[in-house]
Amino acid sequence: MEIGRVVGTVVSTIKSSGLNSYKLLVVAPVEVATDAATPEGATTYVAIDLVGTGEDEIVLVTRGSAARIPDASNVPTDAAIIAVVDTVQIGSKNVYSKA
Amino acid sequence: MEIGRVVGTVVSTIKSSGLNSYKLLVVAPVEVATDAATPEGATTYVAIDLVGTGEDEIVLVTRGSAARIPDASNVPTDAAIIAVVDTVQIGSKNVYSKA
Amino acid sequence: MEIGRVVGTVVSTIKSSGLNSYKLLVVAPVEVATDAATPEGATTYVAIDLVGTGEDEIVLVTRGSAARIPDASNVPTDAAIIAVVDTVQIGSKNVYSKA
Amino acid sequence: MEIGRVVGTVVSTIKSSGLNSYKLLVVAPVEVATDAATPEGATTYVAIDLVGTGEDEIVLVTRGSAARIPDASNVPTDAAIIAVVDTVQIGSKNVYSKA
Amino acid sequence: MEIGRVVGTVVSTIKSSGLNSYKLLVVAPVEVATDAATPEGATTYVAIDLVGTGEDEIVLVTRGSAARIPDASNVPTDAAIIAVVDTVQIGSKNVYSKA
Repeated sequence: MEIGRVVGTVVSTIKSSGLNSYKLLVVAPVEVATDAATPEGATTYVAIDLVGTGEDEIVLVTRGSAARIPDASNVPTDAAIIAVVDTVQIGSKNVYSKA
Repeated sequence: MEIGRVVGTVVSTIKSSGLNSYKLLVVAPVEVATDAATPEGATTYVAIDLVGTGEDEIVLVTRGSAARIPDASNVPTDAAIIAVVDTVQIGSKNVYSKA
Repeated sequence: MEIGRVVGTVVSTIKSSGLNSYKLLVVAPVEVATDAATPEGATTYVAIDLVGTGEDEIVLVTRGSAARIPDASNVPTDAAIIAVVDTVQIGSKNVYSKA
Repeated sequence: MEIGRVVGTVVSTIKSSGLNSYKLLVVAPVEVATDAATPEGATTYVAIDLVGTGEDEIVLVTRGSAARIPDASNVPTDAAIIAVVDTVQIGSKNVYSKA
Repeated sequence: MEIGRVVGTVVSTIKSSGLNSYKLLVVAPVEVATDAATPEGATTYVAIDLVGTGEDEIVLVTRGSAARIPDASNVPTDAAIIAVVDTVQIGSKNVYSKA
């Protein structure tokens, strides 16, 4: 999985019906091992929200067919937010704690 | 999913029969978090159109096996346009609105 | 899907039996939006041929599990040539036409 | 599969129930062919632990749908640690041995 | 599929039981279209061996779910060596022949 920051939302009227009940969030990858900043050149992507997250939260995103397990098997998505991150520990150092 | 701009079309006579009833559109990735421009070095790709979009529209594309859920299970595609984007909001800023 | 140029062939005697009846073609990615040249740093890959193409043709390649839909479900391939490209139109410009 | 080093842990309370019984570990890719260092620009990712590993161990990680075979079919993960590496031999040289 | 050179082996005692009967080989990608050298910046990876290859051989590797078709459906692998390459022809030139 990848760790990302929720940075925005996408609204769409004309869409595959499988997307109907999901929030579409824009996620920016972040590199937790260092400073939770988005690496230069990294590009944002769009994920469905399976856990009820919001702007600026640090989340865990699963990509590919895993994004449809187990709650979204008929949803044409290749990315899903599956966890809100509380803490990230690297070695003996706590590099991220949810405020 | 990825946000892209529809920039062109591909026409093919000799093809897998699974592609027969789909429009093949050329999509350029765009980075919505900034200016909806295509990042340098990004390459275009071809997606089937599941929502009836057209030239220059900003769309949501799903990649991999998700491209065959739920409307295209016998289509040998690894990319499908599944939504036309109305608006993209990053933080408190509306960075894209469909004209 | 990706657009590529068929640049060569691979021959193999010792192989998974699932590959037995397929031609193995070397494909170089091409960037059709500009000049159908292979982008610097792009690497070639090998795809099975599902449509009967040949050297120097511009083709559509599908990657991942889509390469086994619908004609090659027992073939251990992650890339298949599923169409010969006739024309590519970018905006109002015809950027490629098959000779 | 990829070889990586376990560098940290992620804790999450709000998450997909499929993740409940798994440790979430932060993995940094390493290039064993040379010096088991993490290549510049490589980014860390998060994997579930299927073998009981820990901080600083060199492990084998499988990505994509393989991460759910055979022990985690209802887990929405796209990465799983499936082996602890004992030794890596490159040519006639033993480039890594577990301490 | 990708063409690679077998450069080493991985040994593991603590591992997913699905890996038990397979050799784990380290593969370096090679660019056959030019000189069969490994492109700068390319990283090695680990694949199971389905054809009985060995050190220094040029092989065909399939990635993703294809690595489990048809001989390894319960193996948690995302990469499998499925052919030993005899020759690679690029245009009219034989760029590689097995010794």
